[in-house]
Amino acid sequence: MRYDEARAAFPVLQRYAYLNAGSVGPMAQATYDAMVEAGKAELGPRGGLEQFEQIIEARKGLREVVAVQIGVDAARIALTTSTSEACRIVVSGLALGAEDEIVTTDTEHFGLLGPVHASGARVRVAAVRERPAAEALDAILAATGPRTKLVALSHVLWLNGHVISVEELKKATSVPLLVDGAQSVGAIPVDAEPIDFYTVSGQKWLCGPTPTGGLYVRDPEALRVAAPSYFSQASYAPEGSFEPREGAARFERSWIPAAFIAGFEAAVAALPGWRFERAREITDRCRELLLGAGFDVVTEPGQGTLVSWRWDGDTTAVVKRLYGDDVVIRDLPRTGLLRASCGYWTSEDDLQRRVAALAAL
Amino acid sequence: MRYDEARAAFPVLQRYAYLNAGSVGPMAQATYDAMVEAGKAELGPRGGLEQFEQIIEARKGLREVVAVQIGVDAARIALTTSTSEACRIVVSGLALGAEDEIVTTDTEHFGLLGPVHASGARVRVAAVRERPAAEALDAILAATGPRTKLVALSHVLWLNGHVISVEELKKATSVPLLVDGAQSVGAIPVDAEPIDFYTVSGQKWLCGPTPTGGLYVRDPEALRVAAPSYFSQASYAPEGSFEPREGAARFERSWIPAAFIAGFEAAVAALPGWRFERAREITDRCRELLLGAGFDVVTEPGQGTLVSWRWDGDTTAVVKRLYGDDVVIRDLPRTGLLRASCGYWTSEDDLQRRVAALAAL
Repeated sequence: MRYDEARAAFPVLQRYAYLNAGSVGPMAQATYDAMVEAGKAELGPRGGLEQFEQIIEARKGLREVVAVQIGVDAARIALTTSTSEACRIVVSGLALGAEDEIVTTDTEHFGLLGPVHASGARVRVAAVRERPAAEALDAILAATGPRTKLVALSHVLWLNGHVISVEELKKATSVPLLVDGAQSVGAIPVDAEPIDFYTVSGQKWLCGPTPTGGLYVRDPEALRVAAPSYFSQASYAPEGSFEPREGAARFERSWIPAAFIAGFEAAVAALPGWRFERAREITDRCRELLLGAGFDVVTEPGQGTLVSWRWDGDTTAVVKRLYGDDVVIRDLPRTGLLRASCGYWTSEDDLQRRVAALAAL
Repeated sequence: MRYDEARAAFPVLQRYAYLNAGSVGPMAQATYDAMVEAGKAELGPRGGLEQFEQIIEARKGLREVVAVQIGVDAARIALTTSTSEACRIVVSGLALGAEDEIVTTDTEHFGLLGPVHASGARVRVAAVRERPAAEALDAILAATGPRTKLVALSHVLWLNGHVISVEELKKATSVPLLVDGAQSVGAIPVDAEPIDFYTVSGQKWLCGPTPTGGLYVRDPEALRVAAPSYFSQASYAPEGSFEPREGAARFERSWIPAAFIAGFEAAVAALPGWRFERAREITDRCRELLLGAGFDVVTEPGQGTLVSWRWDGDTTAVVKRLYGDDVVIRDLPRTGLLRASCGYWTSEDDLQRRVAALAAL
């Protein structure tokens, strides 16, 4: 697939300089069409046994699809509907108490931070946001200690796009790692196999329906099913004790409509093989254009596919003004930062329009 | 709206004797159309600030819609995606331990039973399934004791359709009540106001998209937010501690796509005012026809809108054979029971076809 074909798959790009896949990716016409087609089943006997069994079977296929994105075995994938849900599965399954510690960073989304706090464990926050990317690992390791039962952080930081080398972190510590892949999966190459827990968002860089996602659990037998659902059990007793299903599927909590399974699969099927190289190049270009226009870019070169820069004044007002020019970026609350997300679909023209719109303010 | 108009709203009923709203209700064409129309937004700048704010605003409207179904204040409704999720919110928020007890019945779905078991509390199971409906309340009260911190049960039992008088139960005990409304809301009149926690399923008797639903929390301030999501917080600190949002919205965990909000609202808007009387009559008729054909009906008259009867032999095979005749019922695993669900849309012909198909086996 050529670049212009890949870009033309997304109707939104005909009009918008859409630079916000870090919140939600663009949706391809083919993904939408697959959802509408599969969604027609809702008008039929949707509660029938056959329909139920078809969805259960389709979930197996979807686990394979998710597993391939991060290079792991599908039996260790649980389908989820958000990174927050995935984080809750892990944190609650570890059953931590006030004597335990979780290490995280000062650059995490509340979807991870909320469940981490609610665990009841003491939370130690490593300051990485204002540090060079290369120093992040040391700051995180310095925060770990004998009581640390989990390190929970993002692979790519949502506020500045910096990459945490989770492979090196895994080698440097024996503490279990929960890695939030919201800003990495589909954006940069990911090999999650050595990581203990790794989350996948379907609706961001994979351009799937909202909400879709998954959680990789390296050793499903070792994590308690803290919040069982119908999908968790192979059989159960009258007082609720249960035999869990095989593999990570036991952690699944949510029904996934046929339309969402079909849409997620269609979205992933359309990802071009050259997506990571192209995303790397266009992100570097995004950064250069901002620097060339005199903006104070906080993202270092060669990181993820998010680029953030400082803005004096009301960042939300800037986002709204740019939307009026059909340029979609986002601001990052309480940071004074604006952020652009670059995907393999992003064009030079998208980036130029963004800089021109900013310059016109 | 007349009966024939109301019935004609559901395309599935043109071909099928669809008697399984207890699993998933029929979907009206207008509901489907509303979903497709709202779903078109996915092709636009779906991660834009304006789009995000629209969804957040639409969630408010949906809370009102859910609240009206059970006669409560919308500020005490949390939107959920399943009864299991709702039960998890309550059980985890109560933070029970091994010294505490939860009373439930022997006729609950795993969606309630799983979270109840996972709480860590001791579970006491009141035997109501083989008892007359009028004796259920006494059996439940007999199981409660000084250590009981929660009574968790269904308003209408999914295995036999019997109604538990939760209003009387509330008067008879000071223990908090968690009532699973999966088989009651939309099927029989419900006034949840005095109940501590009451769950709503959107996709069953309300004929909404799968999955949709809600949870009524009578006193949101008194329940801990055990599993915070982005939707839980008004603001948060770097280590994850947070100021919860106003009301029960703090317990919300899931993004709800625009299509699902629009579909759920369209489904509820189409419910006729005479639905409960008609559902009552046709359920009584369903029961009479089975009795007349010599079946061993386990459901008493004047209960909910589910009717179950015993079947010797492979119940799953019966369900599949009837599906071949375009008759959709379900079997209830490990009970030897078959179950028909009657809604206001159910016709005499649906019921006759079901009895004829059973007689032909």
